[in-house]
Amino acid sequence: MRIVRTVRELREAVAAARAAGSTAALVPTMGALHEGHLSLVRAARSEHGFVMLSIFVNPKQFTDAADLAAYPREEGRDAALAEGAGVDLVFAPDAAELYPGGFATTVHVSGAITETLEGAGRGSAHFDGVATVVSKLLIAAAPDAAYFGQKDAQQLVVVRRMVADLGLPVRIVACPTSRDEDGLARSSRNVRLGAEQRIRALAIPRALDAIAEAARAGETDAAALLARGEAVLAQSGVDAEYLALVQPDTLEAVQRVTEPTLCAIAARVGDVRLIDNVLLGDGPGRR
Amino acid sequence: MRIVRTVRELREAVAAARAAGSTAALVPTMGALHEGHLSLVRAARSEHGFVMLSIFVNPKQFTDAADLAAYPREEGRDAALAEGAGVDLVFAPDAAELYPGGFATTVHVSGAITETLEGAGRGSAHFDGVATVVSKLLIAAAPDAAYFGQKDAQQLVVVRRMVADLGLPVRIVACPTSRDEDGLARSSRNVRLGAEQRIRALAIPRALDAIAEAARAGETDAAALLARGEAVLAQSGVDAEYLALVQPDTLEAVQRVTEPTLCAIAARVGDVRLIDNVLLGDGPGRR
Repeated sequence: MRIVRTVRELREAVAAARAAGSTAALVPTMGALHEGHLSLVRAARSEHGFVMLSIFVNPKQFTDAADLAAYPREEGRDAALAEGAGVDLVFAPDAAELYPGGFATTVHVSGAITETLEGAGRGSAHFDGVATVVSKLLIAAAPDAAYFGQKDAQQLVVVRRMVADLGLPVRIVACPTSRDEDGLARSSRNVRLGAEQRIRALAIPRALDAIAEAARAGETDAAALLARGEAVLAQSGVDAEYLALVQPDTLEAVQRVTEPTLCAIAARVGDVRLIDNVLLGDGPGRR
Repeated sequence: MRIVRTVRELREAVAAARAAGSTAALVPTMGALHEGHLSLVRAARSEHGFVMLSIFVNPKQFTDAADLAAYPREEGRDAALAEGAGVDLVFAPDAAELYPGGFATTVHVSGAITETLEGAGRGSAHFDGVATVVSKLLIAAAPDAAYFGQKDAQQLVVVRRMVADLGLPVRIVACPTSRDEDGLARSSRNVRLGAEQRIRALAIPRALDAIAEAARAGETDAAALLARGEAVLAQSGVDAEYLALVQPDTLEAVQRVTEPTLCAIAARVGDVRLIDNVLLGDGPGRR
């Protein structure tokens, strides 16, 4: 497995792989790899001859300097995990490679897609940062497909919209949220949870389960469904930043759950901000 | 020469040309072709085996609905001129092909580059529209090089910045401003000038000439140089929307002309808005 730092080396490597007859896949990450990322790598591996994984803690998508500073960085460990999962090439640029002096361009996706949920909580600059860096990574690596986790549901919607709008010739593949045995969605931030916080954090997937269960039982009123989730959170003393039922492509709030609907949550446990989601009405086997 | 309407056909055509060993060039236009556009085609033709010309009157870069409505559209004439100049393929999409339903993405270049000169006069949405459509055209056609006229100097600076920032793998080529015998910069808008207006409009290149002449004679004070130009305009009763001396890459105003400096002007003659520019300190043969 190679590790490259520059767009030029990345392009040469993918061109060589393509010349040798492979299709190419990219798994964009901010490092701190866990089983969730590795499941994306395995999905990419199963469909493509050349698998790239990018590691870049993108400063432009952090709206909180402390969150950026606290984000775990452990490239040696990440590289070993990537290699073990079958990655062919790691692209690990420094910030100056992606944002050289005089950089002045922002890719902005407007509307509810970026203004609600995470956009409301973290500020609109967050998704500007996401859309800008993902467009740059997709232009740099020019993969046939790029793999994203359903766990960052809104990021996925923003990326799909940006890719469709700019006409980038890449297939965006969504992979199911990867969960620990106890049900907590895997996240690079989970390592910052203390033992007691970890137990409280389980209220998040339990709240989503309660809502999904009620929906399966026939409840369609959004307020009633959300109340089920809020009750579960309250039992554990977890305050949601948001808990919402939204249309899965536009992210506009829904009043009645009669079509497939995304139920998304963000909550802080201690100083760790966690997000999770579940798609309702998408068949019984979704979890 | 082929005319295609869809990104899919465009991609197939350029892929076929490349498979046959050609490099590919794109000349983006809004149609209403004149000798200036054709000079871009000939420059592209001299360096590339496959030359594409796009015709798209981009609604997103017009901040004035009347200006958009009045913009000349004459595809049959344009196609004949393009073919005569050696274009291999015309890409003439309709608005729905480039901006389908739900389109929500803007490519924005920030700073003086987009806020001064045309950005101040036409509103910042103008260059958002330019950067967005040019990024889409470059992603769609994936040319090795794209050719732009120096006449739209600020557009060229915005495009260069956007291309560098997004890392689009395309060479941006600037070609000299094409002028009629009387010195007026060629523009699709010139056809809207009446005979008397046409004569008054010549004050624009004469003002630039006067400034360039004074700079060659050793004047370095920006205010003194601009006063020379203003005097020429005043003689013809032409009021400049702006007449400015700016650094050529950042477009920040300069006080003293000791390095290569862009002198740019916009002025209305009747209801026709004209722009022009000259690069000072770029050697004696620049005009």
